[in-house]
Amino acid sequence: MFELGVVRRNIVRADRVAVDQLAKFGASTVHEALGRVGLMKTYMRPIYAGARVSGTAVTVLLQPGDNWMLHVVAEQIQPGDIVVAACTTDNTDGFFGDLLATSFRARGAVGLVIDGGCRDVRDLTEMGFPVWSRAISSKGTVKATLGSVNIPVVCAGMAVNPGDAIVADDDGVVVVPAGIARKVADAAAAREANESEKRAQLAAGVLGLDMYKMREPLEKAGLRYID
Amino acid sequence: MFELGVVRRNIVRADRVAVDQLAKFGASTVHEALGRVGLMKTYMRPIYAGARVSGTAVTVLLQPGDNWMLHVVAEQIQPGDIVVAACTTDNTDGFFGDLLATSFRARGAVGLVIDGGCRDVRDLTEMGFPVWSRAISSKGTVKATLGSVNIPVVCAGMAVNPGDAIVADDDGVVVVPAGIARKVADAAAAREANESEKRAQLAAGVLGLDMYKMREPLEKAGLRYID
Amino acid sequence: MFELGVVRRNIVRADRVAVDQLAKFGASTVHEALGRVGLMKTYMRPIYAGARVSGTAVTVLLQPGDNWMLHVVAEQIQPGDIVVAACTTDNTDGFFGDLLATSFRARGAVGLVIDGGCRDVRDLTEMGFPVWSRAISSKGTVKATLGSVNIPVVCAGMAVNPGDAIVADDDGVVVVPAGIARKVADAAAAREANESEKRAQLAAGVLGLDMYKMREPLEKAGLRYID
Amino acid sequence: MFELGVVRRNIVRADRVAVDQLAKFGASTVHEALGRVGLMKTYMRPIYAGARVSGTAVTVLLQPGDNWMLHVVAEQIQPGDIVVAACTTDNTDGFFGDLLATSFRARGAVGLVIDGGCRDVRDLTEMGFPVWSRAISSKGTVKATLGSVNIPVVCAGMAVNPGDAIVADDDGVVVVPAGIARKVADAAAAREANESEKRAQLAAGVLGLDMYKMREPLEKAGLRYID
Amino acid sequence: MFELGVVRRNIVRADRVAVDQLAKFGASTVHEALGRVGLMKTYMRPIYAGARVSGTAVTVLLQPGDNWMLHVVAEQIQPGDIVVAACTTDNTDGFFGDLLATSFRARGAVGLVIDGGCRDVRDLTEMGFPVWSRAISSKGTVKATLGSVNIPVVCAGMAVNPGDAIVADDDGVVVVPAGIARKVADAAAAREANESEKRAQLAAGVLGLDMYKMREPLEKAGLRYID
Amino acid sequence: MFELGVVRRNIVRADRVAVDQLAKFGASTVHEALGRVGLMKTYMRPIYAGARVSGTAVTVLLQPGDNWMLHVVAEQIQPGDIVVAACTTDNTDGFFGDLLATSFRARGAVGLVIDGGCRDVRDLTEMGFPVWSRAISSKGTVKATLGSVNIPVVCAGMAVNPGDAIVADDDGVVVVPAGIARKVADAAAAREANESEKRAQLAAGVLGLDMYKMREPLEKAGLRYID
Repeated sequence: MFELGVVRRNIVRADRVAVDQLAKFGASTVHEALGRVGLMKTYMRPIYAGARVSGTAVTVLLQPGDNWMLHVVAEQIQPGDIVVAACTTDNTDGFFGDLLATSFRARGAVGLVIDGGCRDVRDLTEMGFPVWSRAISSKGTVKATLGSVNIPVVCAGMAVNPGDAIVADDDGVVVVPAGIARKVADAAAAREANESEKRAQLAAGVLGLDMYKMREPLEKAGLRYID
Repeated sequence: MFELGVVRRNIVRADRVAVDQLAKFGASTVHEALGRVGLMKTYMRPIYAGARVSGTAVTVLLQPGDNWMLHVVAEQIQPGDIVVAACTTDNTDGFFGDLLATSFRARGAVGLVIDGGCRDVRDLTEMGFPVWSRAISSKGTVKATLGSVNIPVVCAGMAVNPGDAIVADDDGVVVVPAGIARKVADAAAAREANESEKRAQLAAGVLGLDMYKMREPLEKAGLRYID
Repeated sequence: MFELGVVRRNIVRADRVAVDQLAKFGASTVHEALGRVGLMKTYMRPIYAGARVSGTAVTVLLQPGDNWMLHVVAEQIQPGDIVVAACTTDNTDGFFGDLLATSFRARGAVGLVIDGGCRDVRDLTEMGFPVWSRAISSKGTVKATLGSVNIPVVCAGMAVNPGDAIVADDDGVVVVPAGIARKVADAAAAREANESEKRAQLAAGVLGLDMYKMREPLEKAGLRYID
Repeated sequence: MFELGVVRRNIVRADRVAVDQLAKFGASTVHEALGRVGLMKTYMRPIYAGARVSGTAVTVLLQPGDNWMLHVVAEQIQPGDIVVAACTTDNTDGFFGDLLATSFRARGAVGLVIDGGCRDVRDLTEMGFPVWSRAISSKGTVKATLGSVNIPVVCAGMAVNPGDAIVADDDGVVVVPAGIARKVADAAAAREANESEKRAQLAAGVLGLDMYKMREPLEKAGLRYID
Repeated sequence: MFELGVVRRNIVRADRVAVDQLAKFGASTVHEALGRVGLMKTYMRPIYAGARVSGTAVTVLLQPGDNWMLHVVAEQIQPGDIVVAACTTDNTDGFFGDLLATSFRARGAVGLVIDGGCRDVRDLTEMGFPVWSRAISSKGTVKATLGSVNIPVVCAGMAVNPGDAIVADDDGVVVVPAGIARKVADAAAAREANESEKRAQLAAGVLGLDMYKMREPLEKAGLRYID
Repeated sequence: MFELGVVRRNIVRADRVAVDQLAKFGASTVHEALGRVGLMKTYMRPIYAGARVSGTAVTVLLQPGDNWMLHVVAEQIQPGDIVVAACTTDNTDGFFGDLLATSFRARGAVGLVIDGGCRDVRDLTEMGFPVWSRAISSKGTVKATLGSVNIPVVCAGMAVNPGDAIVADDDGVVVVPAGIARKVADAAAAREANESEKRAQLAAGVLGLDMYKMREPLEKAGLRYID
């Protein structure tokens, strides 16, 4: 893990149909379907509101202040991929802007998740190219030191393997291991079906206390009502 | 203070008419009318721009990663209330989403202030249910440990008693003790009337230096002009 | 540097034509044209998205929780200026709101950059008066302690001299020393001309690896491709 | 709450005998005895390791960058008190140094808890005057704006009333409401007696799993062992 | 990865001899020997200065505010292990204190690395049981929700597999994959041998510029000397 | 300012006698003597307690993750200098360790102030080579990109010119412009003489309220005493 100077060309991507379904459920539902794991740190924010995408991860490990490997990863992108960029240390420099976005899109990428900075946000917003980043920064980068492409990385506190499914929206970024993407998509669908029914009841004034039958366990736990 | 496992059912809410007036002045004017106190920490941000509400506080003390008490507090909501959720420790998990919002709204709540995370922000934005939170997070929570409802809490650095008036907008969240809501609303109204006059003068090019008669005290304090 | 209690009235402003051109290139391009220096800390964020301005700096050094000097600086504003406000210590109080904005605009200011808090963001947004700040806060300030006006300051990690050119947009705030504003504007123009050509190639699927001739240096650095 | 410009001279202090006992149990045991509440934010750190004190709170609300009220609170100190200093906004300035420490000690104070900065740490360490603060800073302060003394405050996220018992050590700062200081001291004593027995068993190799009879509830919760 | 409710009993530990050697080189040398990867986030700090240990990782994934799994992991400790505790979300609660340390030591653990809070630091210091943590906190925890033991985790930004070698000292915490512990120990030894020679030269006044032959590459990169 | 790729060899250092005196007053007294300016951000902390030094600044601007220029600056060190290292962006990597310290000391440096990370803290502590840094980190750095030496920099929020006097201790790091070092040393001496007298009075129980004659201005400001 974390070997530097390596580009893996052949990776096994999560099932395309399953990955495509994840976007419609969104990050929070998928996170629950995964058993409440898989969420990146909450400092990862979209550069504009409203985007919701899912895709397969091509990963890249960057060095601080150096975006050389983003050019290397571009060649490994296939349609439907999301680039997931980690860095060997905390760094907010503007690794990515509208030129790289143009290139990534031309290769078929549907978005970028970067544990670093992003710039040209006005252009990216106009292009509709979604980015989740830890910062927005004009700070330029050099092209001097090797990182790696398509190795396992830790991005914003979450382990990501090449080919994993990624789902990202206003709520954050969730990583689904490639091998269980189908199962998670099914669980998310089941969960969502279930939610419509609950929503209707709650809207009608039914309390969660009753709908989820919480009164007895709360009382057992010692909850006391006083006037 | 901070007794766990207690739900107080009867609280004295601030005067409704006064509370309703606070929203139109906004957080900053009310904060000044209070004598420059009462503002929660500035990390409390609205999940979408442009909301401005006022209401009476029903309080809830949460445990980290546990939203059980949000279901308990739902039952205590009356029309015009704002739920104010504190936590026994710093935690950004997604305690609150669109299902709870549906329930809170059905009970008459006009918003939520939570020193924790919020999720389903796209749905909440579409619903127009305003939330001020310390984070946005998909991270799900359990229902295992008791907190309390309608006890005095500290939320984002500010003491809140059940029934206090809350006013929140893009500038932040301000707490007005229930007993002085009327007085504060009047002071805010006076302040605002006063501001229109000032705004007109400043727009006409009059300097604050002259309008507020600052030149003499600045000179006394030792201010020197050099060329 | 950092002498307190001083207002300098005569400052040498950067060349107006050059300064006006900077806005159209934006912060990131200007930052590159400067040789990748000059960017303020990334915690400086616009209070609303989409603003892009350039102007000449009038500087002010504030004391924590005290906005007295903002009234003093107002008198020194000339059309086309941007006020750059530093503080003697980290402070997020709401030093600036719609009244001061009205006054600044009446004097000809095109924006404010403040290493502190800002309030009345709804009003400022409606006015279209752009502010870049470290925080949004209702917290009011006093008028009790002297700072200075038009002395060299450090604002959000960047040294700013009175008269320097400032360019700010969604990507951040960049400072261009007054003496080289023309040269930087020319370099930014050249850079941008160059970018259109690159953008077209990348959009057509050409890789940065080939366009920038990176394959050989990457190989020399030891990059290995594996399957 | 939070009225500015007020000094309350008569406050009811927690029972002296109970307060004195709290120091020997330390912050963590007292926090548990309180039912796991009462701890200030963890950014409050001692300026030197190894101090452990308890005392009765005299409270002071400061303005940012202004230590005027620390001179006012000095007069209200009685032997055995700990000064608890809050601030109307986040501020790390060096409000307190060796001169004030000399004065506080002469009045009988046993320590200071300040949600702000402290300086002269070398002198304070030599004096053995313990301080818990959010920062260490040489930054000097002015004496220009009123706060209050002996009003309820929120210090580092915790509500403190004048007269409350405070216990502070390397683990942090805990607030015990004055009215229950005796009860809490007794509970802490019981807890500690209980711990010696447990410590001996654990040292002998008994597992908490068995000592606390956790195996069954863990199994019920679904824990699975795999090889 | 990140399956909850699972305890893996059989793990493959890194070679004991190699692991034991790592401590004598320290975190920084091992980090270099690894190719400049493997370091946890720098917020991980020792609770007292001067400790330096190496051991094999037994991992545990905690839930926020809940230390139940620390009792479960205790049973899996073998002599020479270091417990590495991750959490499903950022949390600073005091999961660990002197009782658990007594139990861990009785099982043979040589230290704890926890991406959470630690308490009883005075007792732990007296015991000489080293802990690296993100915070010190009295805040108590509950025992209500399952995590897992000996699954791959991300702790303070670094992926850790059960059995990996851990080396920790005042410089931080480094993770060495189990399979390459021997190779890394050898590389660290070579590196250190090399350093003595360099140190002697530098102490004698030889410049790194000459010793590392940097003058030519610096000149090629464009470095200019001016008077 | 901030020109990259430049080494200035001839700088004008502050008066040696004055600089040497500053250490005995310490950072806080010097900061006051400067008129309460000149302090670096409070995140700059000594790697061990108790050091107090003063010296003349040789400055260096680093690139993130790259310590090449520390070797370049070594050659410019003269006896009595303190190296002040800034970085073009926030970065906590371990730029500096015991080898560079050996070299710096051989050249006559009395310490390092670095707005970045430091490693080998155990060795540096044993050597007694004091460092003030924003972080401690094992993370290694590359030697690939030019910065500059002896240009004006901003280090931890404070502007530093080559040759300025630096005084650093447990309270922080203060920058004294070279041209006024003598004046500031004299003012610090006067201030300290004055403090002994005050300390004696305060120790005898005299209140600051009386010693500084604050009662009247407090009353004028509206302070009210209540029982």
